[in-house]
Amino acid sequence: MLNISKRGNEMPSSPIRKLVPFAEAAKKKGTTVYHLNIGQPDIATPETILDAVRNSDFKVLEYSHSAGNESYRKKLVEYYQQVGIQVTAEQIIVTTGGSEAILFGFMACMDAGDEVIIPEPFYANYNGFAVEAGVIVKPITSSIESGFALPPIEDFEKAITPKTKAIVICNPNNPTGYLYSQEEMEVLKQIILKHNLFLFADEAYREFCYEGTHTSAMHLTGVEEHVVLMDTISKRYSACGGRIGAFVTKNQDLLNAAMKFAQARLSPPSFAQILGEAAVDLPANYFDTTKAEYKKRRDTIVSRLNAMEGVFCPNPGGAFYAMAKLPIDDSDTFCQWLLESFSHNNQTVMLAPATGFYSTPGLGKQEVRLAYVLNVERINKAMDCLEVALKEYPGRS
Amino acid sequence: MLNISKRGNEMPSSPIRKLVPFAEAAKKKGTTVYHLNIGQPDIATPETILDAVRNSDFKVLEYSHSAGNESYRKKLVEYYQQVGIQVTAEQIIVTTGGSEAILFGFMACMDAGDEVIIPEPFYANYNGFAVEAGVIVKPITSSIESGFALPPIEDFEKAITPKTKAIVICNPNNPTGYLYSQEEMEVLKQIILKHNLFLFADEAYREFCYEGTHTSAMHLTGVEEHVVLMDTISKRYSACGGRIGAFVTKNQDLLNAAMKFAQARLSPPSFAQILGEAAVDLPANYFDTTKAEYKKRRDTIVSRLNAMEGVFCPNPGGAFYAMAKLPIDDSDTFCQWLLESFSHNNQTVMLAPATGFYSTPGLGKQEVRLAYVLNVERINKAMDCLEVALKEYPGRS
Repeated sequence: MLNISKRGNEMPSSPIRKLVPFAEAAKKKGTTVYHLNIGQPDIATPETILDAVRNSDFKVLEYSHSAGNESYRKKLVEYYQQVGIQVTAEQIIVTTGGSEAILFGFMACMDAGDEVIIPEPFYANYNGFAVEAGVIVKPITSSIESGFALPPIEDFEKAITPKTKAIVICNPNNPTGYLYSQEEMEVLKQIILKHNLFLFADEAYREFCYEGTHTSAMHLTGVEEHVVLMDTISKRYSACGGRIGAFVTKNQDLLNAAMKFAQARLSPPSFAQILGEAAVDLPANYFDTTKAEYKKRRDTIVSRLNAMEGVFCPNPGGAFYAMAKLPIDDSDTFCQWLLESFSHNNQTVMLAPATGFYSTPGLGKQEVRLAYVLNVERINKAMDCLEVALKEYPGRS
Repeated sequence: MLNISKRGNEMPSSPIRKLVPFAEAAKKKGTTVYHLNIGQPDIATPETILDAVRNSDFKVLEYSHSAGNESYRKKLVEYYQQVGIQVTAEQIIVTTGGSEAILFGFMACMDAGDEVIIPEPFYANYNGFAVEAGVIVKPITSSIESGFALPPIEDFEKAITPKTKAIVICNPNNPTGYLYSQEEMEVLKQIILKHNLFLFADEAYREFCYEGTHTSAMHLTGVEEHVVLMDTISKRYSACGGRIGAFVTKNQDLLNAAMKFAQARLSPPSFAQILGEAAVDLPANYFDTTKAEYKKRRDTIVSRLNAMEGVFCPNPGGAFYAMAKLPIDDSDTFCQWLLESFSHNNQTVMLAPATGFYSTPGLGKQEVRLAYVLNVERINKAMDCLEVALKEYPGRS
């Protein structure tokens, strides 16, 4: 008997995609499914940046530099300046999506058996990259009651062991939409300084802040050697399929190591680097429209949710996710029931059970994540479905 | 002191790229450098497949399916049929280059401490993926004197331990250009059956065979559960920058595991999937022209090399690489000297020292790899340089 690896067995399945067959079955029956389950924005990719690819003129689709095209990295320096981050082109490695930046960070900073602390609920794929790197995730819990604020410093201190090498934060957060305040970022700074840890900052949603301003981990002073920015253009420009991200750090040893991982896989995708480079030249007000649209959606979804009996949804400060506590027994069962057994005017809604975002077993059973990646009209229809569903659901608690 | 991981330290640097600064310095001095050092073809990417991307019409650059677009996977089924490989769309996971297919295979089949046997000299980046997966490479040596034929079965048997999980072959081979015969493939089949091993087959250069025919590992019968095809369109269509490859297997457990790795990184790049899909519809004679061109180059480079005093270059059956034994003390020193201290009519040649392709220390010191990715005229000029250089080189042996 030929066996796959333990790692292959331990690798987590996508907690969102397991519901896909039920959604497909619902659609086959003729039911309209409103997808609030996945962070695929419906916002059009700017025509001008798609045109940059369409108008590209070269004879050979060559490997780019392993760190990404120099012209693109220089443009990224401009972009980062605009958001108050001072880096050089040599401190940037263009990656295949934010995913690869996370993988490079985990691989280059941690060995098998090392530990990484992540406030939960967190982006489920961190688990996958941790398994790939043989790293152990130590969650510390943030609660919906506190709006998913950074857990108190004592919780970090309790979780830190001699094996702890890093903390991961996603800011603004997926799945909670929470935007860390400058004070919270300063707390993180103190922790990483005191315990000599890396701080991995996933800032995929940097542009989408609706309350307060964004404090990047790269804005923190005195921890330049500690901070690794894991970035992506996927959400920023509705360019998820391009698979272009960036690994950014001022730590030279780490850069050298990450470059070796980058060289092993030769280069990031060429076409989408052209798109990413063009994106830096989008008009300064580009994000205004997109942000205004997301804010309108957020306001709609949050007010609709909080108006439902027994539902609580803290107001998320950024990204395009909201977490809601529902009067239900089990979010996995509920989300499947919505697709399998429920419809309202021949429509239903697909949500992400929050259990997949918690690492501690048993947490998130009454919570769901809603990605507001549909327009207000469709969000309202989805909320109509949810409102009726919560009344009909047999497992209402 | 904040330390990077042991893995980050152990990760090998690219053996080819370390010479790049010397090549850049030579160019700055005004010397023409003929690049025979890297497998970046100069063959134009077919216009029609670039046009497929340029004419693409969509509003949102979305994530594709984690396994790749279904339409592309169905097209790939057609492509594989054309080369005598019967697979279904469900047995294909589209990857980010062949690189990611290798990584998925190593990760999903082997755990840290497991061993993989690879005939050396081999594609240097296997070392990098082995370090990422914590896997130990056990080389068995093929020799230039035998033209890099598959080492005898006894050498495999000697290298196999209870930790051995797989054998990697690259066919036709990078760096040697060796094309494994059907008999050699049958020998490999017996070994993997007897010892219950996976066979990873890197067939990036499948189309480029100049003597005999290609036997794919997927042509072997009775080992369907053992075989993993690690494929890429990079060389096939001169589309290296697209970063599109494929992980193909009939082993359902392995497919399920590999899909979890695929889901963690969300999706392969969208643009180049469009290009790959269009490529399957290239006219049946597309490869004839490219192959004829490469064959002409091979014939030129091999005859030029063997005409030089003290040089031996076995005739490679496929790919676009040749390995040559030179009358020199040390190939690393020689290749650097070519760039740093030598020129002939203001020209020089960049080669890859073979030491980087051997895992056993000390091997390859008199060998270099030449990638015939330049046209015949330029190859001849490069050979003129090499011929003169071998006479002038102080470390001639």
